[in-house]
Amino acid sequence: MTDQFITAVLEEGDPAEDTRAFRRALGQFGTGITVIASSSGDATVGMAANSFSAVSLDPPLVLWSIRKESRSAPAFLGNGHFSVNILADHQMELSALFGKPQPGQFDQVDWTPGRHGDPLLDGAIAHFECVTESVLDGGDHHIMLGRVERFARYQGAPLLFTQGQYSVSQSHPDLALTADTSCAATDTQPEESLFMSLLQATDHHMSALFQHHRRQVGVTLATGRVLNRLSRGACTTEALGHDTFLGENTVEDALSELVDNGRVYRDAEGNWALTEEGRQVRRALRRSAEQFTEAQLRGISKEDLETAERVLATLLGRGRREGW
Amino acid sequence: MTDQFITAVLEEGDPAEDTRAFRRALGQFGTGITVIASSSGDATVGMAANSFSAVSLDPPLVLWSIRKESRSAPAFLGNGHFSVNILADHQMELSALFGKPQPGQFDQVDWTPGRHGDPLLDGAIAHFECVTESVLDGGDHHIMLGRVERFARYQGAPLLFTQGQYSVSQSHPDLALTADTSCAATDTQPEESLFMSLLQATDHHMSALFQHHRRQVGVTLATGRVLNRLSRGACTTEALGHDTFLGENTVEDALSELVDNGRVYRDAEGNWALTEEGRQVRRALRRSAEQFTEAQLRGISKEDLETAERVLATLLGRGRREGW
Repeated sequence: MTDQFITAVLEEGDPAEDTRAFRRALGQFGTGITVIASSSGDATVGMAANSFSAVSLDPPLVLWSIRKESRSAPAFLGNGHFSVNILADHQMELSALFGKPQPGQFDQVDWTPGRHGDPLLDGAIAHFECVTESVLDGGDHHIMLGRVERFARYQGAPLLFTQGQYSVSQSHPDLALTADTSCAATDTQPEESLFMSLLQATDHHMSALFQHHRRQVGVTLATGRVLNRLSRGACTTEALGHDTFLGENTVEDALSELVDNGRVYRDAEGNWALTEEGRQVRRALRRSAEQFTEAQLRGISKEDLETAERVLATLLGRGRREGW
Repeated sequence: MTDQFITAVLEEGDPAEDTRAFRRALGQFGTGITVIASSSGDATVGMAANSFSAVSLDPPLVLWSIRKESRSAPAFLGNGHFSVNILADHQMELSALFGKPQPGQFDQVDWTPGRHGDPLLDGAIAHFECVTESVLDGGDHHIMLGRVERFARYQGAPLLFTQGQYSVSQSHPDLALTADTSCAATDTQPEESLFMSLLQATDHHMSALFQHHRRQVGVTLATGRVLNRLSRGACTTEALGHDTFLGENTVEDALSELVDNGRVYRDAEGNWALTEEGRQVRRALRRSAEQFTEAQLRGISKEDLETAERVLATLLGRGRREGW
């Protein structure tokens, strides 16, 4: 869909000269989210990590990285074993809970101990029980190479982290489009229904259009979401991350930019809030989003649009009512 | 959305006893797709890899893994430098092109040489130019640790590989739902329009429902897609991968299962084809998908549904006509 957009360079340079820009470039690589955990006696440590990588099938090896300065590093290095839990799409709260070490983390989640006592979190879509094969030097991180002794795979879809936001996976839209255009004869219908293919293709398409529009008005997904959230009231950095589904670094980058531009300030209680200019910019964005939507919807009658909305709302509401 | 589904274990065990099942469990961790490339004189090697991982900011380090038996391994080890290209959502063909070493790969794509001559592919959403910091032992793979000398980030969305299929990223559906329910007052409207939020939430929801339905009738996403594709005619493994948006291993696993079940066979030309039982199963799946859709759509009048489809088709068609 997006190959018709002009590919513009957003940032480039020497990583040593702009660490934050380098991190944003690294963030172009989408990942799942894991919670890595380890127990020794009564002491249990756990941390969210997206540096997990499959390495070898025979022997079965996986790796992940931990900051050398992390408070949990000594425990992970000393215990000699760890568990990897791949989070499901509905486990975003767990990612936040294990974002930094804090006491009692494991009292707030359901888990069972693995063969070495390492926590296996309920609801994860995969578990790997590992013994540490080696610890390799990775600059400001230790690279933890683990030998997998036992694996388990569960039903469910993965939580993803892409371009600084928590997200989910969607079938490639070209798959729906292929099906869509080949459905004249019964035998070449898409696997799902024509309606669902259409729904998916339209969703992806509108979303790509809106991203394009947002760039044209000079906002990123992150600054747009932060402005939108703060228009509902001042809040902490943590609440911002929670409500915008953005990662910690992304929220920090967006706040830094918005403060520099005079759109956001820190109020007397230490919460982030919109300045008068911030309010104006947000209102302008709102109007521009409305104009974008109007342009997209032009020629479609009010009645037809309301009918379409009612159909979508019915489909959405029915499944939820029935407890799916 | 899916936390209401029962979390069932699909496979578990010792990785040494079932390598393919272990690989499927590893596949629960979603990733982006990179093409790693290296040049020395006229010789250029490149391979698709999803084992990329960010390691360290200071010094700037990244890693990826290559099979020790790979024909490209000596070149990557010998050259001492490589480039990492993170693919955009429309670059699936590149992932296939660099799936295995073949002559003339780099004649089929547009690229420019980086500072060490390593290919930087046009259209990628990030480039990293690296010198090899160290090569670490990773079982049947070499772990290539690279020091990043230069990075670039470009506009665009990432191609993803999740649970064995090529996919794209979608904003977390709970974000749309939050916005959706808080839009009574103008100032708390979602950043995008209500219609787009509704579109997104419904798409995700219907898709999750359909996955649930598919499991109930005993088909996986992969076997369902392979059956569907083969109902349009026999084809090669390669064409199957291309048309189903499934990874090579996923296609192999699905074919293996379908052949064992007597649903697929290899015809005289060496192409994969449906057996009579395969045809019957596929027809039954088709009927069951229709029943699922009918159940979802019941109570919505034919007229309303047609109106909704027309609205979606208009939105989809308009943007495409205008060359977005």
